[in-house]
Amino acid sequence: MSLPHPDADQITLPAVLAALGDDTRLAIIGCLARSDAITGLVCGQLCGLTSKTNLTYHVAKLREAGVINVRPEGTRRRVTLRREDLDNRFPGFLDTVIASAIDLPLVDITLRQLHEAVQD
Amino acid sequence: MSLPHPDADQITLPAVLAALGDDTRLAIIGCLARSDAITGLVCGQLCGLTSKTNLTYHVAKLREAGVINVRPEGTRRRVTLRREDLDNRFPGFLDTVIASAIDLPLVDITLRQLHEAVQD
Repeated sequence: MSLPHPDADQITLPAVLAALGDDTRLAIIGCLARSDAITGLVCGQLCGLTSKTNLTYHVAKLREAGVINVRPEGTRRRVTLRREDLDNRFPGFLDTVIASAIDLPLVDITLRQLHEAVQD
Repeated sequence: MSLPHPDADQITLPAVLAALGDDTRLAIIGCLARSDAITGLVCGQLCGLTSKTNLTYHVAKLREAGVINVRPEGTRRRVTLRREDLDNRFPGFLDTVIASAIDLPLVDITLRQLHEAVQD
């Protein structure tokens, strides 16, 4: 079952700004920006950021605003940035947000945990 | 009496994004960006955007996040963008937001009303 996403031309700046205006959601964007752009991450890989319930809520907020794509894969959900759609709608905007988001402490901690889990 | 403002190094991206993630507050930024950067606007000039009570609320939200400066002048309040502080903290960010905000219909309507009021 696919989840509802706004079309590219339905994405509005106030909705995107409001979706990004939160520590956890900004950290999700930071993690995605530092991951492979095509494969993205599955939600479980973002569990270091917050509780599972909170993560579901924050991922839905970002999806509804048009910031990320969420694709169910069996019991998992794969998350990718809607970089092309956002760059077309608001040129340069996402890059300036990412430039600040990738250095958030939460992003570093989560990606380090992820790296260590892969090595175990 | 001066109003509390965060110092430049206390301004955080999530707070700025959350403050800007609203139609009316984005329109305030659009109006300020199209006005004189030094003199800004007095709150009364933004009344076309929303009711006076709402305007007071939205201006406070932007001030508390560090997006605008609010200086009392007698019974009026003069509002200016904290462009230098924001550009130093998040290079390029404000420009990309303004590029989208200045074209908002609310901004056009408000500035036209303002222009007509000056001519009367």
